Amino acid sequence: MKAVVFHGPRDVRVERVPDPQIEAATDVLVKITTTGICGSDLHMYEGRTGLEPGRVLGHENLGKVVEIGAAVEEVQVGDRVCVPFNVSCGYCKNCERGLTAFCLTMNPFGAGAAYGFDGLGPYNGGQAEYLRVPHGDFNCLRLPSDRALKETDYVMCADIFPTGYHATHLAGVRPGESVVIYGAGPVGLMAAYSALIKGADRVMVVDAHTERLRIAEEIGAIPIDDRKAPPVEQVLDLTDGEGADRGCECVGFQAHDPDGIEHPSMTLNDLVRSVRPTGTFGVVGVFLPQDPGACDEVSKHGEMLFDFGDFWWKGQAMATGQCNVKTYNRHLRDLIADDKAAPSFVVSHELSLDEAPEAYRHFDARENGWTKVVLHP
Amino acid sequence: MKAVVFHGPRDVRVERVPDPQIEAATDVLVKITTTGICGSDLHMYEGRTGLEPGRVLGHENLGKVVEIGAAVEEVQVGDRVCVPFNVSCGYCKNCERGLTAFCLTMNPFGAGAAYGFDGLGPYNGGQAEYLRVPHGDFNCLRLPSDRALKETDYVMCADIFPTGYHATHLAGVRPGESVVIYGAGPVGLMAAYSALIKGADRVMVVDAHTERLRIAEEIGAIPIDDRKAPPVEQVLDLTDGEGADRGCECVGFQAHDPDGIEHPSMTLNDLVRSVRPTGTFGVVGVFLPQDPGACDEVSKHGEMLFDFGDFWWKGQAMATGQCNVKTYNRHLRDLIADDKAAPSFVVSHELSLDEAPEAYRHFDARENGWTKVVLHP
Amino acid sequence: MKAVVFHGPRDVRVERVPDPQIEAATDVLVKITTTGICGSDLHMYEGRTGLEPGRVLGHENLGKVVEIGAAVEEVQVGDRVCVPFNVSCGYCKNCERGLTAFCLTMNPFGAGAAYGFDGLGPYNGGQAEYLRVPHGDFNCLRLPSDRALKETDYVMCADIFPTGYHATHLAGVRPGESVVIYGAGPVGLMAAYSALIKGADRVMVVDAHTERLRIAEEIGAIPIDDRKAPPVEQVLDLTDGEGADRGCECVGFQAHDPDGIEHPSMTLNDLVRSVRPTGTFGVVGVFLPQDPGACDEVSKHGEMLFDFGDFWWKGQAMATGQCNVKTYNRHLRDLIADDKAAPSFVVSHELSLDEAPEAYRHFDARENGWTKVVLHP
Amino acid sequence: MKAVVFHGPRDVRVERVPDPQIEAATDVLVKITTTGICGSDLHMYEGRTGLEPGRVLGHENLGKVVEIGAAVEEVQVGDRVCVPFNVSCGYCKNCERGLTAFCLTMNPFGAGAAYGFDGLGPYNGGQAEYLRVPHGDFNCLRLPSDRALKETDYVMCADIFPTGYHATHLAGVRPGESVVIYGAGPVGLMAAYSALIKGADRVMVVDAHTERLRIAEEIGAIPIDDRKAPPVEQVLDLTDGEGADRGCECVGFQAHDPDGIEHPSMTLNDLVRSVRPTGTFGVVGVFLPQDPGACDEVSKHGEMLFDFGDFWWKGQAMATGQCNVKTYNRHLRDLIADDKAAPSFVVSHELSLDEAPEAYRHFDARENGWTKVVLHP
Repeated sequence: MKAVVFHGPRDVRVERVPDPQIEAATDVLVKITTTGICGSDLHMYEGRTGLEPGRVLGHENLGKVVEIGAAVEEVQVGDRVCVPFNVSCGYCKNCERGLTAFCLTMNPFGAGAAYGFDGLGPYNGGQAEYLRVPHGDFNCLRLPSDRALKETDYVMCADIFPTGYHATHLAGVRPGESVVIYGAGPVGLMAAYSALIKGADRVMVVDAHTERLRIAEEIGAIPIDDRKAPPVEQVLDLTDGEGADRGCECVGFQAHDPDGIEHPSMTLNDLVRSVRPTGTFGVVGVFLPQDPGACDEVSKHGEMLFDFGDFWWKGQAMATGQCNVKTYNRHLRDLIADDKAAPSFVVSHELSLDEAPEAYRHFDARENGWTKVVLHP
Repeated sequence: MKAVVFHGPRDVRVERVPDPQIEAATDVLVKITTTGICGSDLHMYEGRTGLEPGRVLGHENLGKVVEIGAAVEEVQVGDRVCVPFNVSCGYCKNCERGLTAFCLTMNPFGAGAAYGFDGLGPYNGGQAEYLRVPHGDFNCLRLPSDRALKETDYVMCADIFPTGYHATHLAGVRPGESVVIYGAGPVGLMAAYSALIKGADRVMVVDAHTERLRIAEEIGAIPIDDRKAPPVEQVLDLTDGEGADRGCECVGFQAHDPDGIEHPSMTLNDLVRSVRPTGTFGVVGVFLPQDPGACDEVSKHGEMLFDFGDFWWKGQAMATGQCNVKTYNRHLRDLIADDKAAPSFVVSHELSLDEAPEAYRHFDARENGWTKVVLHP
Repeated sequence: MKAVVFHGPRDVRVERVPDPQIEAATDVLVKITTTGICGSDLHMYEGRTGLEPGRVLGHENLGKVVEIGAAVEEVQVGDRVCVPFNVSCGYCKNCERGLTAFCLTMNPFGAGAAYGFDGLGPYNGGQAEYLRVPHGDFNCLRLPSDRALKETDYVMCADIFPTGYHATHLAGVRPGESVVIYGAGPVGLMAAYSALIKGADRVMVVDAHTERLRIAEEIGAIPIDDRKAPPVEQVLDLTDGEGADRGCECVGFQAHDPDGIEHPSMTLNDLVRSVRPTGTFGVVGVFLPQDPGACDEVSKHGEMLFDFGDFWWKGQAMATGQCNVKTYNRHLRDLIADDKAAPSFVVSHELSLDEAPEAYRHFDARENGWTKVVLHP
Repeated sequence: MKAVVFHGPRDVRVERVPDPQIEAATDVLVKITTTGICGSDLHMYEGRTGLEPGRVLGHENLGKVVEIGAAVEEVQVGDRVCVPFNVSCGYCKNCERGLTAFCLTMNPFGAGAAYGFDGLGPYNGGQAEYLRVPHGDFNCLRLPSDRALKETDYVMCADIFPTGYHATHLAGVRPGESVVIYGAGPVGLMAAYSALIKGADRVMVVDAHTERLRIAEEIGAIPIDDRKAPPVEQVLDLTDGEGADRGCECVGFQAHDPDGIEHPSMTLNDLVRSVRPTGTFGVVGVFLPQDPGACDEVSKHGEMLFDFGDFWWKGQAMATGQCNVKTYNRHLRDLIADDKAAPSFVVSHELSLDEAPEAYRHFDARENGWTKVVLHP
């Protein structure tokens, strides 16, 4: 089959690789019809995190079931399914409590597995014609009959819609509250969208890209351009000096200031300052235990100069980590099916699999207008 | 009246000062019969945090109501009451949600007020014969008739018992879980005691003082002496390499290693390493936005080198801050009344008010056996 | 002053009564500018529940502060405030946990007090020119400067908007879930509106009044006319036979079938049948421990033939009771201020105080178009 | 193999039946070493609920894995496991949220499946030499190496320890609260034990059996003998007239008064009266949608005369249903392993499989001293 294969930093190629096979009786094979390129794919693309050459990328996958293992009971051949980016077993101590992003079974090297990802197990990704899905009954989300029309919406349920939603969940956003979101990339926009779905009052989104801020405003959020004034000041102004009730970090370790200089601790310390005492924040931007390509010695070891004194004195709390997609994807799917959510507003480009290398290049350059790419193999 | 007056670093004196008066119709005057010296008093005593000379210390107060303002409805003259260390209004946006440690009314300089404390409002403390308690109906906890026999237990409800309990609440400790607690000072011991009351399974307490570790063991916790081996290793050994389910920080900004060298980030980074993925921790040890007497430049500004990469990758969460005493003090009082809790096990010395300067000296030196002092004016 | 005085069943008159006075140092006097007539006023109006003649009705109150007691600190003369229907002390065991509808202080005969209400303390209501508000700092919600334009929206924060919201809170409604609401009266419509604000997916509202169902549809809910088919069947049809995730009871003890025959247990047993296994429901419709005017012997004693076997077998849960208005009113006010909510859509008539007797007559007759009345004294 | 086979009311026999086989690749075969007789087995034994003749009884099972299906990954031959009474798939909408007692897959006739039970699927029970466990990785709880010494403790994790714990969870019991528990049978005693583990203050247990009340007292609860005075009065006396904070129903549809007369609504209405306003209760006693053998017409249809008026006016809440065993069994196992819990105190008899018919007869007669039987096949 054809697949997007990683060869090295900034070198991905569409090549023929062997078709995936049913390996365990609980496996499911999916013919991919839509698959996204995620901001976290760029960490590997840029060589900032390592990935062995030859691996197939892609963890935002949707398609049609073409084969099932002997022990698969619920999923049927022909079903249209969206596949969470986490590969999880369903029965370990974490999975049974819904913490599927920290599955203790599927990754031989730690908690949590994913498709086409560095350090998260040996699973090939779905930027390809076919994908093997372990524990198919547990991991496949079946889609309703209007799938054809909304495929670009539904594919968002594999990662970024649940991940943005997770940010608001970790932050504890409740109706009527104000929220500040750092980052208007695809995940940040999904966090803003989720906060609005949940009935948040003021949703403020901080970024330095005009186009992203425009989209944020279009969906009902308040854009905060950090090129114009320090974002903390802008948030305090918008909240009578009190600070936002909740905050979301949707940028991660490659945060940089409007001048393009990297400051891994910038968004977190800004959150401390722009969220009110007793406020909480959710951090879904990716941070790394080791980051050899970091801008300073401290960051290379995953450490950060954090304003802990302020954080403690304000009695704040923060929760972090990868999204447990299955905690949210059924309800988000239902909102799409009933026309209450249409997250494809974030998609700027729908391309063929063959155009993937090109798409990676534009997206990585954060070129204006390249907000989010999905591929249709 | 006689009171313990702060004059400067390591200089507290018992002196005569004017009696407090009813100032507002909602005030209550309490004749103090028992009042504690808290580890946080030592921050001021050592001059590590500032306090204007002339202020009366003491925020762990219990006594008898001797006068009430005209608008006081519930508290009666003659009632025996325990007074939370927080001074709170009861009606602001935070108090109405139970966040009384972050009252927006009583401290002109920020959220949260307390008796006899630097930066937390103009209130004199209760290491004295009398104490003025604002908003008496809201702030006084009435004690049952067995008060006389258990006064040393009940006075723990003013601060350290709720604060230790708060640590376990912030950490989300549930029955059957394992917990690691950094610090076996009075608050750490109360956290361990609270975790055990809540039905935690293994409760591990890290410290370097033999006497404190002995008390921890006596109440049913597992003592971890960090002079013998790195505490993280010991916790991992006790949890099959997985790490504790939850963690509590009960040390604060003056954390130091077994050799006595200060490392403000030591306990937090150890928590990250000794708590399992998806685990959470509660931080009640005090950290400061500014700490001019700190050991390094970074800490002077309240910043800390925090292992954020590990923290995020493990999907951990932490909650922090001063304890909202009223959230817990009724139930803790009831447990004492029904002989289900007896937190006075932590008290090593019961002294007169006149002995306060002596007590401060011994307690500050962390002299063996000086675990906790209460004064009876 | 002029006030709406209760004289007996179906006999309310606008009369001159003595002005209320500041009685305690914590009192506040409010000049009422808008006050609602609530469905629960009709229980007394119809004589179904008793009220001593001479009492002033009205528990949905908004106005301008004209005098404050000596111990009032926060509320100022001139402030525009909305007053929760609950009269609460702010400091008892229930109030301190936010359970202000069950205040243990203000009602000499039990838990919970309210203005102008049978069995809930001696407080006169606000269908009058002035209202005395006990514990003014705790009970007054201050309004922003756009109050003048949105007074009819803000007055909904005194009772029915929070009460409808409370129904969804008790039911545990989460984004993406389906909800069935029994009753499209003002409270039921507010519950539907709240569920939609919270991001619920399908919100189904059951009633037998064409006009009310039309309003439900207009705000985005699915109207279910129980004159056309049994509502349980309609809900099951709309949920693939599974039942709604959550349910709300917004009718109360005077529930009647489409033929007008009273069946106090009808809506609850329909909820059991139309909510899915493991589903939960919130019951804010009023039910009475004693109902001498009930249709059968059982109901006269507050008992009900409840399908407990089905309820248990399905593993359902339900939560009940009066709304703790202060838990919600700040955030609902903020949503109004920021144009995210406009609950005055439910108001059909704005009248003068003098027109109150007329308004009671029409509203009690459930005349078409008389959905909700507010008075401007 | 030998098994306890149901032949009809009060007719169970130990007979040879075919050995169970691996039927699906995810199945596990367990050689049973300990299996309990549960109070809910008696519903079938007495013919109160139906069961087809020929079915093997027994849903409290523990043993050694002797064979695993091809897709089983985690459980190994030789593992000692305790098996939850619920048969659940692990991947349906309910299981993925932990609601394994309401699995939508394993019971063709509704939500929720169990071994050897009427209406809960075709699964044979474990009062036998071998048991087939579907979805073995999901359903088996592995036991530590001290299993041999504590097998009678660990077998309690299959049903009654988690079920008693579930009652306190549904009731929302928190440390320091008072709890009233109706029923001192095995489940009621486990609820009391769980409340005490969780740090409840006063735990009051209502029953009419001297021996059961003695055990309740022995574990630290307050026995309330309803033959001496109405239990509601006794609870109110013990709580200063206020009522308990929380309540648990551990009796079910066969509740009877001290004179032996059945009153299915008795315990629930007593709960309403003996729990304080805003209190909540958990109902784990079994209630049936249809009960042809009931004492009155109403109960035959699963209806109950419930004091809904009082329930609502007090703002109470209740949650119900079968226990989701997997939500609790890991932590309860750990408490047993670490000597923090020893639920076998409830076991009065350990017998061989052959003695099962005898044991059923004595246990069904509620003979003094026959509190709980476990069988060792």
